[in-house]
Amino acid sequence: MVKESKPTGGLEWRINVPNGTTSKVLVPESKSHFRVWNGLRGLIVGFMSRIWKFFEKAWSLAVREPKKAIHGLKVGMALSLVSLFYYIRPLYNGVGGNAMWAVMTVVVAFEYTVGATLCKCVNRATGTFLAGALGLGVHWIANQSGEKFEPIILQVSVFLFAAAATFSRFIPSIKARFDYGAMIFILTFSLVSVSGYRVDKLFELAHHRLSTIAIGTSLCILTVMLFCPVWAGNELHYLITNNMEKLAASLDGCVVEYFGINANVNAKGEDSDKVLLGYKCVLNSKATEEVMANFARWEPAHGRFNFRHPWNEYLKVGAFLRKCAYCIETLTVSTNSDTEAPHILKKHFSKFCISLSSSSSDVLKELAVIMNTMTKSTKIDLMVHEMNNAVQELQGALKSLSKETIIGDSKNGIEEGNKSSTVVPLMEIVPIVYISTLLIEIAARIEKSVEEVNELANKAEFEQESTKKSKQSQNQQNPNQPSQGNQEDLTMKTLQKV
Amino acid sequence: MVKESKPTGGLEWRINVPNGTTSKVLVPESKSHFRVWNGLRGLIVGFMSRIWKFFEKAWSLAVREPKKAIHGLKVGMALSLVSLFYYIRPLYNGVGGNAMWAVMTVVVAFEYTVGATLCKCVNRATGTFLAGALGLGVHWIANQSGEKFEPIILQVSVFLFAAAATFSRFIPSIKARFDYGAMIFILTFSLVSVSGYRVDKLFELAHHRLSTIAIGTSLCILTVMLFCPVWAGNELHYLITNNMEKLAASLDGCVVEYFGINANVNAKGEDSDKVLLGYKCVLNSKATEEVMANFARWEPAHGRFNFRHPWNEYLKVGAFLRKCAYCIETLTVSTNSDTEAPHILKKHFSKFCISLSSSSSDVLKELAVIMNTMTKSTKIDLMVHEMNNAVQELQGALKSLSKETIIGDSKNGIEEGNKSSTVVPLMEIVPIVYISTLLIEIAARIEKSVEEVNELANKAEFEQESTKKSKQSQNQQNPNQPSQGNQEDLTMKTLQKV
Repeated sequence: MVKESKPTGGLEWRINVPNGTTSKVLVPESKSHFRVWNGLRGLIVGFMSRIWKFFEKAWSLAVREPKKAIHGLKVGMALSLVSLFYYIRPLYNGVGGNAMWAVMTVVVAFEYTVGATLCKCVNRATGTFLAGALGLGVHWIANQSGEKFEPIILQVSVFLFAAAATFSRFIPSIKARFDYGAMIFILTFSLVSVSGYRVDKLFELAHHRLSTIAIGTSLCILTVMLFCPVWAGNELHYLITNNMEKLAASLDGCVVEYFGINANVNAKGEDSDKVLLGYKCVLNSKATEEVMANFARWEPAHGRFNFRHPWNEYLKVGAFLRKCAYCIETLTVSTNSDTEAPHILKKHFSKFCISLSSSSSDVLKELAVIMNTMTKSTKIDLMVHEMNNAVQELQGALKSLSKETIIGDSKNGIEEGNKSSTVVPLMEIVPIVYISTLLIEIAARIEKSVEEVNELANKAEFEQESTKKSKQSQNQQNPNQPSQGNQEDLTMKTLQKV
Repeated sequence: MVKESKPTGGLEWRINVPNGTTSKVLVPESKSHFRVWNGLRGLIVGFMSRIWKFFEKAWSLAVREPKKAIHGLKVGMALSLVSLFYYIRPLYNGVGGNAMWAVMTVVVAFEYTVGATLCKCVNRATGTFLAGALGLGVHWIANQSGEKFEPIILQVSVFLFAAAATFSRFIPSIKARFDYGAMIFILTFSLVSVSGYRVDKLFELAHHRLSTIAIGTSLCILTVMLFCPVWAGNELHYLITNNMEKLAASLDGCVVEYFGINANVNAKGEDSDKVLLGYKCVLNSKATEEVMANFARWEPAHGRFNFRHPWNEYLKVGAFLRKCAYCIETLTVSTNSDTEAPHILKKHFSKFCISLSSSSSDVLKELAVIMNTMTKSTKIDLMVHEMNNAVQELQGALKSLSKETIIGDSKNGIEEGNKSSTVVPLMEIVPIVYISTLLIEIAARIEKSVEEVNELANKAEFEQESTKKSKQSQNQQNPNQPSQGNQEDLTMKTLQKV
């Protein structure tokens, strides 16, 4: 039997007993109020805790990437500045209600990176100008052809130009660079040609609108470039460099973990997992890289980058890094699989595999250093050579497998007369052969990345390490001159902090 | 000696002879004009040919994806419709110059897919409403606090709200769904609170603006949904299905090509390359899938999809397909590498590898059929079973390698007393072991994809094949009833055409 609970304010039971009489829990009226209140409180607390969590998330984002919080402040500042056109009488008299367009431009065109802002501003200005001119032209033609035909000509022109411009936004070359411009073209053309039907001083209106947009865009560009600028080029450069380091860490960590030498892994637990899974960021970085490279092209010379810095080469390097990441993904999964190689084989191969993986990741790390310092490395060729040696050693180990351990069909298989050797079934060497071949493949892909980085270094005219050192020593002899090397180091540190 | 050419209107030579006297080619004046004309013509022809190529590209895009051209026409139509607010006197009297906002809404919010349009429209309407209400509130407070403090309060509120809303756009959950809404919030709030300083009938202005935006958004939604609608959900469904087919074709093609049975590949040359490289589309489809799934959530029930169709499951299926693609990428590269396995081994393994790859690709094709018909398949379990059998056969072949061909350290190595067997060095079996293991890994990943598709089929309540068949036979018995099966087939065909 189930006991009826006493109304203690804790759990309450309502029981239907088999004979049909329903047991009732008598609840005083104040109690039911209390229950409603409890439910309400639960809802409110739940809602508040969700909001609290949201703010916590926002706060942690702001702490992790203060640049993003600063971007918010920059937008606020730009809007406050542009709203002065309303508050200060002489400014307002100049532009009047059209100041709205300046505000709108700031809201719409102010982007996170300098390149994106420039791209949007140029697109907005060009699109507005072209469409405005075309709109005035069409308006003039429509005006000449009599009152009856005017709305028809205007309608047809809006239909045709809007359809053509909208479709052009699907063409990849237009989409990549002038997507926003095409939209603004449609917007301005429709507004000018359609509202021209009701507005008399159309030319004045167009002129005012263009000048307020010019005010808005210049304010945007100034704010985004002068206060803590975030350069798309810089971000792309940092992203690629970071990806190299992540791949190196993942590769190293995964091989070391497989061969059970956990002591060498710096981080443990969650952090170690994070390091091992670093390659996942590289797998899906294509879209970001393309957007960044696209915006970087709009940026003027800044920091260590010239105006015509070969941003396209970054995309190629990124593509090769992604290819490495695909292989590392396969490697990670295979090292985590259940089929284990026999201990003796693992021990035998660990030396070669770890040597190859560490020399491979050293090459990746050196590539990251090359990118970071923007200096051609004298060591890289030697390191690639070392990596290739490690590849050959691993291949040698695979070849010599048959010498040291004859592969028979069972562990208790044949023993050759003159050699006493362990016999391991072929199936058991498969994981080792597989992992070794993957490592060799990764090394080959890394070598291609090195070629691509060299190509980038040539096109971007990275300095020679020797030239840099001699400059540094010159600077040490003439301590009064500003040290270029140190400056560069400083820039590098700033970049790393960024 | 170089001969001076006669002025024949063809090639002309100008030679500096060593003693300093310069030989002159006498060109009649008309000729130099001709040359300038030629240069100009070259420039114009080059320019025209570039434009021509651009139009050719656009035309081929329109032919390949007519939906995109239709989208252009739809935008043109919506703009023509909304511009009637200017041309028709009673309509214009109703909204006046605010009709501009309706035009602007159509240009900005009309997107390619229904989901994207709905998302933008809802965001625009909500953002405008919230910001308008808040702006009016702030305006009232500022109004109460005296002429001196009014601009200060307005400025500070614009700064704070704009900064907060801009920053919120970086928070992933906001960015995914309300990015546009946040932008519109900033825009409207700034406009209302700032222009409120100069405009007297602010409430009327806000009301007009909101009503014109409502007109614009409803026009957008009607046009996008009624004329050849493109559903983001449909596109996502088709994308995933298509990716399955592409992976199947790549996997099949690559293995068959490696084992040299080219006769089985349907397409040759460029087309064959295109088929083989189909997996590349899958590698980078993550961003597209996420965007599509995000928009699909906004869409009402349409075609075979309910309102709460489990779009998230598509992302999971997509992720597993991408994992297959990573492996296929590694496989493709390894089958194209220089290190070839010896002919005898290749021949021995071709049977097993092709059997595994074809059963794997069959599973993928069946998954595509499941998705296409939205019917649970009774065959799929059998096919997975077959695939697993093929895996075991391949593993068996690997095991039996040592029985049939003893692996020694050279081709001329030892021969065992009682067995006459070919001796192949271990290094030469490495490629086969590697490719086989990759194939086994791909099969494992495909099996996980099958599980995920089953999960999707359960959540989306796909029909049972048997139920469907019985319904079909019922329909055949009552031929007067509309055939649901046929209808479904028709939808499928339409989908495939799309």
